[in-house]
Amino acid sequence: MRILGIDPGTRITGYGLLDKDGNRLRHVDNGAIYTSSKDELPRRLELIYAGLEQVIGRYQPDVVAIEQVFVAKNALSALKLGQARGAAIVAGVNAGLPVFEYTALQVKSAVVGYGKAGKTQVQQMVKALMKLPGIAQEDASDALAVAICHANSCTLNQRIATRR
Amino acid sequence: MRILGIDPGTRITGYGLLDKDGNRLRHVDNGAIYTSSKDELPRRLELIYAGLEQVIGRYQPDVVAIEQVFVAKNALSALKLGQARGAAIVAGVNAGLPVFEYTALQVKSAVVGYGKAGKTQVQQMVKALMKLPGIAQEDASDALAVAICHANSCTLNQRIATRR
Repeated sequence: MRILGIDPGTRITGYGLLDKDGNRLRHVDNGAIYTSSKDELPRRLELIYAGLEQVIGRYQPDVVAIEQVFVAKNALSALKLGQARGAAIVAGVNAGLPVFEYTALQVKSAVVGYGKAGKTQVQQMVKALMKLPGIAQEDASDALAVAICHANSCTLNQRIATRR
Repeated sequence: MRILGIDPGTRITGYGLLDKDGNRLRHVDNGAIYTSSKDELPRRLELIYAGLEQVIGRYQPDVVAIEQVFVAKNALSALKLGQARGAAIVAGVNAGLPVFEYTALQVKSAVVGYGKAGKTQVQQMVKALMKLPGIAQEDASDALAVAICHANSCTLNQRIATRR
């Protein structure tokens, strides 16, 4: 099973791919889609959608995992994040992929074994588990973390998406 | 010029189409896309995207107009609204259409001539301007209002989207 993890954001959308083979995880690729603040919102969402469409086309993942968000600094950042999430989720469902959401607590627990783990701890564990030469770009690392979470916990009751 | 107005929401996404011929506006159609709260987020966003894709395919609008949002009750409603907006905007840009955003103030000023007009006033004016037999469904009426706003104020500096 190939899992695409996504960490969406208007400015940077991280993605990470891994293969789960039994209990073994193998890193496939990770990266980030950047949009310019000089571009207007529709163009930025278009780039996020098209970037993920390209990643999905190239790597043919079986599922998409994305971090569920409950909090945001304020309503405006929540709106912005929501717009990027909307574009990212639609890129997944339009490709016919099931999309799963996981809370930050679930992600940290799955990766570090401790729900209150710090950002650096999570990044170090992602590096170790994926056998990366160094710590990945921040958002790509977060995307890999949610993909690892899905790999380690794909149980029915965590499935929140519908298959087409 | 045919204008598609959209009023996105996770539960109900209103749409309204009108033709602008010189200074004359002609109502084409309006309606709403409903999603069930029993469905999970990815499925709901998929329905919004697919519903708008269908509307665009059927009516072949030249531009999309959507209300810009600054406030929301709280961060969670902002996130939800953002996700629906993200799906709606991507449906527009993926169809190659320029997407324009207008503030509530701009919409009310354009439709009623008064930026602090109440909801009912706007609905009555939309009904009158579009020569509708009755007041349209609330979100469809709001979608027509933003389409009217675009029709009455498509100046370059309000253009916030990029053509593909």
